[in-house]
Amino acid sequence: MMKKIEFSQIGVINTPFKEQKGIPIQASFGEDIEASCKIFEEYSTGLKDLDCFSHAILIYYFHKCKEVKMIARPYLEEKEHGIFAIRSPYRPNKLGFSIVKIKKIDSDTVYFTEVDILDGTPLLDIKPYVKYFDHRDNTRAGWIEKHFIDGNIPDKTILNNK
Amino acid sequence: MMKKIEFSQIGVINTPFKEQKGIPIQASFGEDIEASCKIFEEYSTGLKDLDCFSHAILIYYFHKCKEVKMIARPYLEEKEHGIFAIRSPYRPNKLGFSIVKIKKIDSDTVYFTEVDILDGTPLLDIKPYVKYFDHRDNTRAGWIEKHFIDGNIPDKTILNNK
Repeated sequence: MMKKIEFSQIGVINTPFKEQKGIPIQASFGEDIEASCKIFEEYSTGLKDLDCFSHAILIYYFHKCKEVKMIARPYLEEKEHGIFAIRSPYRPNKLGFSIVKIKKIDSDTVYFTEVDILDGTPLLDIKPYVKYFDHRDNTRAGWIEKHFIDGNIPDKTILNNK
Repeated sequence: MMKKIEFSQIGVINTPFKEQKGIPIQASFGEDIEASCKIFEEYSTGLKDLDCFSHAILIYYFHKCKEVKMIARPYLEEKEHGIFAIRSPYRPNKLGFSIVKIKKIDSDTVYFTEVDILDGTPLLDIKPYVKYFDHRDNTRAGWIEKHFIDGNIPDKTILNNK
C-alpha cells in the first residue's frame, strides 16, 4: 500500500556551494568548508543543548534533483549499482543525510564545518551524533571498500560535473 | 518560508515489536533482534549490490507518534533537552534513522538485526552505511556522554513505558 507522507521544512542550509561543481562527495571530505543552517522561529527552541555535542546529523531535501533512478552510477566509479547501495541523490525520496561538525550555535542558527550540501537546501531534521549509537565496528562497504583500501583516499572526492 | 515536502513510502518494516514497550532505545542495543523490510515492487531493483554491505541506514516515518514537542525528556534521564539534542520521535518531522546489520537480501526483502523499530513502520529510504563516510573521531555527545562513561552501558536501554 503506497502512502504519501508530508513533511515541513524546518529551516534552510546556507553553504558556499551555489552549484554541484566543487561540492565534496561526502561531508567528511569537506572539513574546511564553513556553512550554517537557520531554523525557522517556531522550531528554534528545539536547539537547546545541541551546543554540547561536537557533531550533528542533518537530514534534508535534495531540492535540485528532479530525476529518479533505480540503478545509477556513483561518482567514485563507472560501474552502476542499485540506488539503495549508493549515496546518490537520484533516490525515490530525495532525503539527504550529512554528519557535520558543530562550531557554534547562535539562537536560531547552527554554524558547522564538514559540508557537502548545496546552498539553499531545505532542512528537515537535526539529530545529535552519538558515537555510542552511531558507530559500527567490523563493517564492510561493498563496492566502496576498494576505493579506500589501505587508508587510501580516492582522487574523485569533489564533484566536477555540471 | 515554510514549505511542505511530500515523500512516498517505499516499503514496510516488519519487526517483533508490536508496541513501544520492549524496544531498544537505539538499534545498537537490539543486536539479537531479527527484522526485515519489504520494498514495494517498483523500487526493489534499487537493492542491487546492497548485499555486499554489512550495514544499512534506514530512514523511516515514526507513524505512531502524533505529538510534537520542542523540549522533551529523553529516555535515559529525567532532564529535558531540545528536541534536536535528543533522538526522541516527538520531533517536528517524524523521521527515524537506524543503522541496522544486514543478514540477507532476498529479491525485495532485506533481513537485518540491530533493531529499534516498531512493526509496520513505513520505510522512506535505505542508504549503505560506509565507515569512510559515517564514522567520526573525537566526538562529544553532550548530555549523553555521562551515561556511557568508562565503557558503561546504562540500565535504561529498553523502553518500558508506552
